[in-house]
Parts: sequence; C-alpha cells; structure tokens
Amino acid sequence: MKLIIAIVHDEDAHALVKKLTANDFGVTKLASTGGFLKSGNTTLIIGTPKERVEVATKIIEETCRTRKEITTTTSLMGDNSVMGMPLEISVGGATVFVVDVEDYIKL
Amino acid sequence: MKLIIAIVHDEDAHALVKKLTANDFGVTKLASTGGFLKSGNTTLIIGTPKERVEVATKIIEETCRTRKEITTTTSLMGDNSVMGMPLEISVGGATVFVVDVEDYIKL
Amino acid sequence: MKLIIAIVHDEDAHALVKKLTANDFGVTKLASTGGFLKSGNTTLIIGTPKERVEVATKIIEETCRTRKEITTTTSLMGDNSVMGMPLEISVGGATVFVVDVEDYIKL
Ligand code: NI
Ligand code: NI
Ligand code: NI
Repeated sequence: MKLIIAIVHDEDAHALVKKLTANDFGVTKLASTGGFLKSGNTTLIIGTPKERVEVATKIIEETCRTRKEITTTTSLMGDNSVMGMPLEISVGGATVFVVDVEDYIKL
Repeated sequence: MKLIIAIVHDEDAHALVKKLTANDFGVTKLASTGGFLKSGNTTLIIGTPKERVEVATKIIEETCRTRKEITTTTSLMGDNSVMGMPLEISVGGATVFVVDVEDYIKL
Repeated sequence: MKLIIAIVHDEDAHALVKKLTANDFGVTKLASTGGFLKSGNTTLIIGTPKERVEVATKIIEETCRTRKEITTTTSLMGDNSVMGMPLEISVGGATVFVVDVEDYIKL
C-alpha cells in the first residue's frame, strides 16, 4: 500500500478528485494554502495499492500539468475607450509525494 | 516512531480524540472532507512509538467501526397524519495508514 | 527526498513559513487544531532533498523552541485600582516528523 500526497492548485482540485474517484481511488481532500505569498492550494491524500501508483500519478499529471492560458487584461485608454490586452499566464502545477505504508486498515 | 494517519467520520472524531488523548497519544486534527460526493470526514495525525501502534489502532477500531443505527424517516400520509418509518443506516468507518518515521523531534 | 511534517503553534507559523521559504524550501500550510482541550496549531508539509533535512529542522528549532514569555494579568483591587501582575508563560514548541519519500514529482 502507498500513500500519495498531492498538493495541487484549487482550480484543478475538483476535476482531479472527480477523475481519481471515477478510477476507484479513495481520495481525502485537506484544506491548505501555499507558503509565503502563495495561496490557493489543495492537498489530497490518496491511498492506493502499490500496483496502481502509476495510474494515479498519470491522472494527476494529465489534470494538473503546468500549461499556458490566455487571459485578457483591460486598460483604460486616453480617449476613455477600453483596450483588452491578451496576457499569457501559467496555470496548474502540482507537487506529488509517494510514501510507503507499513499498515493499512479499512474499517 | 510511527505516524498514524486516520481518516474518520466527523461524528466519531470527538470521541476518538478524547480516547486517544486519555491514553497519552499526541493527536493533531486536520480539517478534511471526503472525495467526490462524500463529505464530513476528519483527518487525524497521531505520532506514536512503534510499540504502541496496536494500542492506537485498537482504539480507532473500537471507536470508528462501521455499525448499523436506526434513524426515523417521517412521511406525510393521505389523511395528513405523519408516519415515522424506522430506517437502518450504516455509520462510522475509517481509513488508517501507518507510516514509518525516520526522525522525530519534540521541541 | 524527504517529507517533513511539522506541527507548530499558530503564533510561530507565519515566521516559520517566511524563513523556510527564504531558504528555498517548498512549504504547504494545512489548517489544524490540537487534540482534546488544545487548540491553535498549524501543520506544515515541507518537501526537501535528504541533504537539506538538517537545515530545515534547525530553522524549525530556532523559530519554534519552547521559551518563556512574560505576560501581564490585571486584577481589580479593593480600592478599585487595577494592579498588573507579571506572569511567566511557556510559548512555542513543535512536533516534527521526517518521513522517507519513495517518489517525488514536480509538475
Ligand atoms: Ni503552483
Ligand atoms: Ni465512510
Ligand atoms: Ni504546544
């Protein structure tokens, strides 16, 4: 048995829990925030047989990988018109730890 | 030293923390919720010497085992009377992981 | 890779996260409370290469060690004056677990 501790961004947490649960993984969601000047992280605890660790980490990678998204900033121009500027931002990302479990009890 | 991570139902958490503390276990309570469509779980972190792991897991088993409870549903009848129907539900249950601790520091 | 789980008092958590982050440690803050009749704890998860575990635990020790502080209690006297009494209290303290990480993924 292994314990996977995954720290993911809030925006990916819901989709990740849904996919892991659909694939028969038991998932527990802990509220968390990142360190200094960072916020909006969710920590998930996933218990899984050793044989299925790769399936879980692949789902995490597909759902939470860092990717570019285009957002639009708006600026007020001199003639009072508003100009939208596309801005590429980086979203997603995750930190995943796999830890060995010596004993596992399911009541 | 071992680390016990116990995910229990909210309704059992208070009694469990009380019993573990009365038995000299150090317990930390993390807020948590279950996965998709589940809610109301509490995650406990318990640090314990190797020799006392069985004592702790026995307390968890006694306090959190899945058991049947009778609840009463009420239905409005055709003559406007209310009928109570006993309904057997399953409560409790827990998921417990025991993890080895390489270093332990108590300040 | 190692995982450090540090349970510290709320009053030390902010300074600790700041120092660990300034020393390039990735820190995730979980909300937590202590066991029966205790409250006000914060649980931190710190991922670190094996070689830097001692640096992290030294920072935790310096920031969270148990120390005496003088607080002032106020009592109402018979002549309606208020008397301040210095009271020495113990603050700080931490519980730290170091756990081995089998696999580590940073997305
Ligand atoms: Ni991030
Ligand atoms: Ni349950
Ligand atoms: Ni304390």
